[in-house]
Amino acid sequence: MSVAIDIDRLMARIFDLAKIGALPGGGCKRLALSPEDAESRALVTGWFEARGLEIHRDVIGNTWAIRADRNGGTTAPVLMGSHIDTVGTGGLYDGVLGVLGAFEVIESIDDAGIETERPLAVAFFTNEEGARFQPDMMGSGVAMGELGLDEMLASVGIDGPSVAEALAAIGAAGDEPVGALKPSCYLELHIEQGPVLEAEGLEIGVVTGVQGISWSEFTVSGATAHAGTTPMKMRRDAGVVAAAIALEARAIAASFGPPQVATVGRMRFSPDLVNVVPETAVLTVDLRNTDETELKAAEKWLFSKAETLAKVEGCTVTRRTLARFEPVVFDPDLVEEVAQGAAQLGMTARRMPSGAGHDAQMFAPHCPSAMIFVPSKDGISHNTTEFTAPDEIARGVALLAQVALTRAGHAQSEGRVQ
Amino acid sequence: MSVAIDIDRLMARIFDLAKIGALPGGGCKRLALSPEDAESRALVTGWFEARGLEIHRDVIGNTWAIRADRNGGTTAPVLMGSHIDTVGTGGLYDGVLGVLGAFEVIESIDDAGIETERPLAVAFFTNEEGARFQPDMMGSGVAMGELGLDEMLASVGIDGPSVAEALAAIGAAGDEPVGALKPSCYLELHIEQGPVLEAEGLEIGVVTGVQGISWSEFTVSGATAHAGTTPMKMRRDAGVVAAAIALEARAIAASFGPPQVATVGRMRFSPDLVNVVPETAVLTVDLRNTDETELKAAEKWLFSKAETLAKVEGCTVTRRTLARFEPVVFDPDLVEEVAQGAAQLGMTARRMPSGAGHDAQMFAPHCPSAMIFVPSKDGISHNTTEFTAPDEIARGVALLAQVALTRAGHAQSEGRVQ
Repeated sequence: MSVAIDIDRLMARIFDLAKIGALPGGGCKRLALSPEDAESRALVTGWFEARGLEIHRDVIGNTWAIRADRNGGTTAPVLMGSHIDTVGTGGLYDGVLGVLGAFEVIESIDDAGIETERPLAVAFFTNEEGARFQPDMMGSGVAMGELGLDEMLASVGIDGPSVAEALAAIGAAGDEPVGALKPSCYLELHIEQGPVLEAEGLEIGVVTGVQGISWSEFTVSGATAHAGTTPMKMRRDAGVVAAAIALEARAIAASFGPPQVATVGRMRFSPDLVNVVPETAVLTVDLRNTDETELKAAEKWLFSKAETLAKVEGCTVTRRTLARFEPVVFDPDLVEEVAQGAAQLGMTARRMPSGAGHDAQMFAPHCPSAMIFVPSKDGISHNTTEFTAPDEIARGVALLAQVALTRAGHAQSEGRVQ
Repeated sequence: MSVAIDIDRLMARIFDLAKIGALPGGGCKRLALSPEDAESRALVTGWFEARGLEIHRDVIGNTWAIRADRNGGTTAPVLMGSHIDTVGTGGLYDGVLGVLGAFEVIESIDDAGIETERPLAVAFFTNEEGARFQPDMMGSGVAMGELGLDEMLASVGIDGPSVAEALAAIGAAGDEPVGALKPSCYLELHIEQGPVLEAEGLEIGVVTGVQGISWSEFTVSGATAHAGTTPMKMRRDAGVVAAAIALEARAIAASFGPPQVATVGRMRFSPDLVNVVPETAVLTVDLRNTDETELKAAEKWLFSKAETLAKVEGCTVTRRTLARFEPVVFDPDLVEEVAQGAAQLGMTARRMPSGAGHDAQMFAPHCPSAMIFVPSKDGISHNTTEFTAPDEIARGVALLAQVALTRAGHAQSEGRVQ
């Protein structure tokens, strides 16, 4: 069966929420646990309450709202969620779609008078973005025991206060302990944040997992020298080594093939003068793969080659790990249900990994979890121009409803469903 | 014949001058036309006056002091000189050696009672370094008509005032017009500012000319994209193109062979984030060669390859010229005299181009000009740790005296010379 969702109601809510922390040129800034986050939490929680959902809030501010099952039970819900915090120059859809889309699913099901065997729930998690407090996916990580509560509460933000202090400042902490949230499964609707669906003209991404991430910072040390007076053979040019490492990262991606990706996003030379051979060069390499063995092989190749390239130039290289996450594989059965749901609803879809991190990966080790992607115009995200069209959103929400209903188990009610 | 120079007197003067603008950790800061420059001009001019030399100063502050010929004439002198301004973190020898070394030559000749057929002169030129006002080699360039006076006087410094204003502020301008300085030949003693002489264990560099210089800034424009969600084949990575251009510059130097050198001293990515494909990359390429045809060929190769590399990645590249000087070839006869002088004095020497610019290149089109290099420890210059040992300096000054005397034509006097 399918349930009719109200796209106008959903879009109105997305635009209402976007007024909080709205930036002059469009987009939003609602850093985690900021006054804007407080305001958005109140607005969304108010909507949950108005629908008569049972509100829960844990000690790190994760908030979930449950629609009871046909027997009034609220345990082990089919949980749908995401986040409502944004980066400093965020868009309207990243995270918000997963929360308000889930709420729309619950409202539509409610409006249709459909009763379910399992409760349905919608949640937003604290500090998914990591733009103010490190690490990202903090709230969901704490809720699922993947991150330590005390350590996270002590994390100090870019503007001074700790998570604990920021929670207190806006009154976002609840009474429920970590671990109070025990879903039977987890579903997250999200914009793709990449260009693949749009480029291939597809409506739905059936997300199979989250790429593993390896971030390294290389510091190459050579010798400063005069660009005119130093013969090439006497140079120890840190910049040349850095450039060669950057091209090696690209070669690794080409050699391994998809889904391996490699990105050199930062590069700095010192002393950074036109006529001075760089003494030091710092660059970052971001490697991602859905397969941990492949990712390790890519790392090994890169690290080894960086050493060789430095040695050939008479330079040295040191490396530090900025971030390292193993790939996450979503529940095959639930992923299959998403794929079948899309087919049943006549939507064009492809299976794909997520290249970015999401709250869903914190749930994956603990309950069947999966994600649904809808297209991002030009692949743009974490940007005020982030855009997904209402009809694209409507399809994603309809599919979310379809899968959630299947998982929750539904009965006909008032003769309005199949 | 050779004349005995007084290395202790010279070193004492070098150290006295180094007290002006002395930096806490060693080295000097005497930016052109600064109060420190004014103080150093007064000190050095005072020494010239104390020796009884005839002082001249032109409208841009170039200062020269003439020891008359045997008939009391002061026209068409054998001119020796360099500069006494420094970069922001300069050393004790760059420029200073060419001025105080030349003065030591004149004093030694004077002390020996040697009379010459032509006058001898020592000069310091305004703003050789270009650290405060662009371009460098300004004073000598104006003196020889290579740079326009009005344009140079209007050049605005990094701290606000123009050259004209700065000249007035420290009272450095003289009454003599541009072009008043008409030497019969020009000799400049300078530290190598490179590692070649030290590496090869040689005492003297017989400078054959100054490398041509081509400075380009490339701006590569691609598309910003998420490092995780954007497949490699969909990327337009400005950073990858920049890295490839940097390695191409290195390949050009390798392919052309010495004296071609190529340096990428600056490299910047934007937005410069670990997980974002660079939208823009800016890099500089410094190409130098002693042969203009070769230098043009290197430029053509680099510019063409940069276009190709950008195109392959779906990026665009623009280029602007930051600086361009044709190679300078010093007078073969005078260069030969320097080489023969070194041999006569039993000094080990090699012919070599200058990789850096010097006042001598402004004289080269107008009168026979040449330079003498002495070793720079570790090739370091434009740095407070710049160092050349007194015995190395003594050899350079003795050779300068030898060549200057040959050019000036000398007669025995008081029986002390051969």
